[in-house]
Amino acid sequence: MDLQGRSLIGAARGSGGAGESKAVNPTTGEELEPVYLSEGEESVEEACRLATEAFLEYREKSGKEKATFLRTIADEIDAVEEEIVARMSAETALPEGRCRGEKGRTCFQLRLFADLIEEGSWVDARIDHAEPDRAPLSKPDCRSMWRPLGPVVVFCASNFPLAYSVAGGDSASAWAAGCPVIVKAHASHPGTAEIVGTAVRAAVAKCGMPEGVFSLLFGSGRTIGQALVKHPQVRAVGFTGSRAGGRALMDTAAARAEPIPVWAEMSSVNPVFILPGAMKEREAIAQGFVGSLTLGVGQFCTNPGLVISGREGRSAFAGQVASLASETAPATMLHKGIASAYHAAVGAMTAKDAVESLAHVEADAGSRLAGAVVFGTSADDFLADQSMADEMFGPASLMVEAEGEERMLAVAESLEGQLTATVHATEEDREQFSRLIAVLERKAGRLVYNGFPTGVEVCHAMVHGGPAPATSDGSSTSVGPRAITRFTRLVCWQGFPDDLLPEELVEENPLGISRIVDGVRG
Amino acid sequence: MDLQGRSLIGAARGSGGAGESKAVNPTTGEELEPVYLSEGEESVEEACRLATEAFLEYREKSGKEKATFLRTIADEIDAVEEEIVARMSAETALPEGRCRGEKGRTCFQLRLFADLIEEGSWVDARIDHAEPDRAPLSKPDCRSMWRPLGPVVVFCASNFPLAYSVAGGDSASAWAAGCPVIVKAHASHPGTAEIVGTAVRAAVAKCGMPEGVFSLLFGSGRTIGQALVKHPQVRAVGFTGSRAGGRALMDTAAARAEPIPVWAEMSSVNPVFILPGAMKEREAIAQGFVGSLTLGVGQFCTNPGLVISGREGRSAFAGQVASLASETAPATMLHKGIASAYHAAVGAMTAKDAVESLAHVEADAGSRLAGAVVFGTSADDFLADQSMADEMFGPASLMVEAEGEERMLAVAESLEGQLTATVHATEEDREQFSRLIAVLERKAGRLVYNGFPTGVEVCHAMVHGGPAPATSDGSSTSVGPRAITRFTRLVCWQGFPDDLLPEELVEENPLGISRIVDGVRG
Repeated sequence: MDLQGRSLIGAARGSGGAGESKAVNPTTGEELEPVYLSEGEESVEEACRLATEAFLEYREKSGKEKATFLRTIADEIDAVEEEIVARMSAETALPEGRCRGEKGRTCFQLRLFADLIEEGSWVDARIDHAEPDRAPLSKPDCRSMWRPLGPVVVFCASNFPLAYSVAGGDSASAWAAGCPVIVKAHASHPGTAEIVGTAVRAAVAKCGMPEGVFSLLFGSGRTIGQALVKHPQVRAVGFTGSRAGGRALMDTAAARAEPIPVWAEMSSVNPVFILPGAMKEREAIAQGFVGSLTLGVGQFCTNPGLVISGREGRSAFAGQVASLASETAPATMLHKGIASAYHAAVGAMTAKDAVESLAHVEADAGSRLAGAVVFGTSADDFLADQSMADEMFGPASLMVEAEGEERMLAVAESLEGQLTATVHATEEDREQFSRLIAVLERKAGRLVYNGFPTGVEVCHAMVHGGPAPATSDGSSTSVGPRAITRFTRLVCWQGFPDDLLPEELVEENPLGISRIVDGVRG
Repeated sequence: MDLQGRSLIGAARGSGGAGESKAVNPTTGEELEPVYLSEGEESVEEACRLATEAFLEYREKSGKEKATFLRTIADEIDAVEEEIVARMSAETALPEGRCRGEKGRTCFQLRLFADLIEEGSWVDARIDHAEPDRAPLSKPDCRSMWRPLGPVVVFCASNFPLAYSVAGGDSASAWAAGCPVIVKAHASHPGTAEIVGTAVRAAVAKCGMPEGVFSLLFGSGRTIGQALVKHPQVRAVGFTGSRAGGRALMDTAAARAEPIPVWAEMSSVNPVFILPGAMKEREAIAQGFVGSLTLGVGQFCTNPGLVISGREGRSAFAGQVASLASETAPATMLHKGIASAYHAAVGAMTAKDAVESLAHVEADAGSRLAGAVVFGTSADDFLADQSMADEMFGPASLMVEAEGEERMLAVAESLEGQLTATVHATEEDREQFSRLIAVLERKAGRLVYNGFPTGVEVCHAMVHGGPAPATSDGSSTSVGPRAITRFTRLVCWQGFPDDLLPEELVEENPLGISRIVDGVRG
């Protein structure tokens, strides 16, 4: 594929006008061709105009038609796997296996949403029949279900160039819901975005979808990113990235004349609690933990950045962790900004008097390399210094010694909202630490038992969300089928004849979906 | 019941300190005893402390236990019906029938939510079983469901002293979800609030619930209302009221370190489109329309404030409407503020050159009385002056002449988000105006066919919501069982043994609820 370095605005290409940039190979520091042209606000206007127009048509597509569209996107992505892998590794320093794995995950997500909307029950259709003779007032016939919100803006994630970028989970769930998607590319992997974007555009054409159902814009977050979130026709936003970046979008969205939801997945330290009984299995836990910590150079939002355990066995465990961590080699991070932030965070933690360094794989602070780092501190010191709980995005973790249930509960209570919270325990621990899990349930979107938080399964029951500041709105998830309702709203039809109702609500249930009729699930 | 004029803060009474006020009988203008003491920020702090403490216990209650609590509240309210009716009519000028009806609706809602949580399937439990042998990575066991958010603040609505106040729909859905509720009373009906609050408190004691599961605060919206929304332990807000009031709360909630959802139901003109075929039945429509317009002195958020029809038959229809409206008598509004706002809105519309007055039941502009008013204008004039679409809260409506499908679509497209949109049509009209309903579906939360928007049925399929500015967030509803998820978030348990899971997620399904297991609804 010849990369053109220009945005995809419906069926057209962008012509730039607001600067230009090139991707950089983080391993070599070399700039990659081609030049990418940055769009300005006119292109935002055009993409929104096309999306608004497309919404009128796309929202009326059946589940089957939308499913075919999603599967065609997946097929088109499969067809360019080699080009994706080559460009993605060059742009991100991610190894080939990860690139192929993430491509597989991306296509799996698209096909899972296709299955979901083809089957159709996700709309949560409910019917209450009329009772014309009810006294004192007759009861009307009411039918309701989820309907699409409108054009959705998706921001590509630096750390998921495929699975949370152009045709990733946010886009897949928005398309599945019936919403056009405008993607804002990430500056660190524009080529990967263009390859996937071209695949999506091919699927749009093959399936006869309106062109505005997809646009991909290159340009600055501060200009076109903000302009997209402000645009009156945009109805929701999907974002995975930094806390500052997410908050800026949330504030913009909240200040609109008609505020819109921003589904931002931001930061999390993903605490891992190791209870005394489980500590006896410390060798296996240490291995699993260091594997989770260093996976993908620690560049996962579910990276375990905090480990809490009691006194007994802790120093042996810390020794094992330190020894395993020291055996890992420094690796290249996604881009210079992430590497600098990592070195700064590690430096700040190192500088704290109350923190000791248990393992520190050195890497030149001026480079894009990151080595695993493990720190140690006490519960008292941790509780006295809130900044110890800040995320260090990368392969770094802080081990906190918290002896006894009360101290462990205090640490748990002190935590902000998290994507995940993990507990390693035996049956015996469960009795002694019965209150811990209840506390953690209030703090996290996903609780992990005797496992590790990385490796977010794409399945019906998955919740990748959690209370603020882990996300902007912890009520939903950005992974798995439950994510679809983020881009919908409820609509009720009262007193309508069958021929004016959506198929999902027609009396005889032609789609054969599960519905709640007069309060009873069928 | 002896009214004490003091807040209910858990099991204690407030001691005021931030001023005092009395309710006013809107019919006579007389002040009603007793004096109500306004609370300050210390009481907010105390109510939030109690609610936070209560949440830890209340969230662990089973569906059955919470159902008993809701039913006991309903029973306690039933037991004081006569006191409620006497005080409520004195405070609001609402007729006895309406007071009894609203009491019935309030208790019905509480019992409907009780049935919902006793049955239990509302939690949307999903289970994906582990596949330990899956290659290349084993699949973990994941289970998820809705869990309560935490303390919820509910603002009493001036126009629903029972059904959207102390133990109304917002409170019932929050309690049903597992959340403690702190209610901010409305200044115009504090006595009704105290009677109902006392009933709730009796139910709290009878059911052995933690005292902080309910508090009722008297005081100023600007001080304690804002303080409640800012409080870090408060997790969500329910509000029914003015656009300015709702927006102020939304802005406060969005500016928090951890923004929280504000479910605000604000303003709507509820357009009614009468298509040419249906116009032949204009006599029946005129009767239904004037009934809907003047119901409860027009003080419903679903009041039909806009009627759009073609040329043919319009003047005869307008004549019928005018004649029926003129036969209605002026009636007393809920309080002086509402009456003044109504007279001002009617005055502003009257002053427009492009608007004619079709019927105007005169009432002294300085009084609390309101008479029915019907205005007329053309589509062109309506489209040229956005302020014609502003809500006139009360029994006033604007009839717009829009000849032909294109013009009607233009009027529909020009509208802001609405709670409802109504179409009167025959089969013949449906072909000719096929695009109208699709446009209205994007504008409203509920579409009504050959009916009227007032009289919101409390049922499983009801949606009382709609795009901004009708509500702050049109994704949900404030009426009916679907409202419960407004006060929840998703939580996932990964790899947990049965004895650590909530009952809803235990493998053998001891509660017998409907669940999605490995993607299949059972």
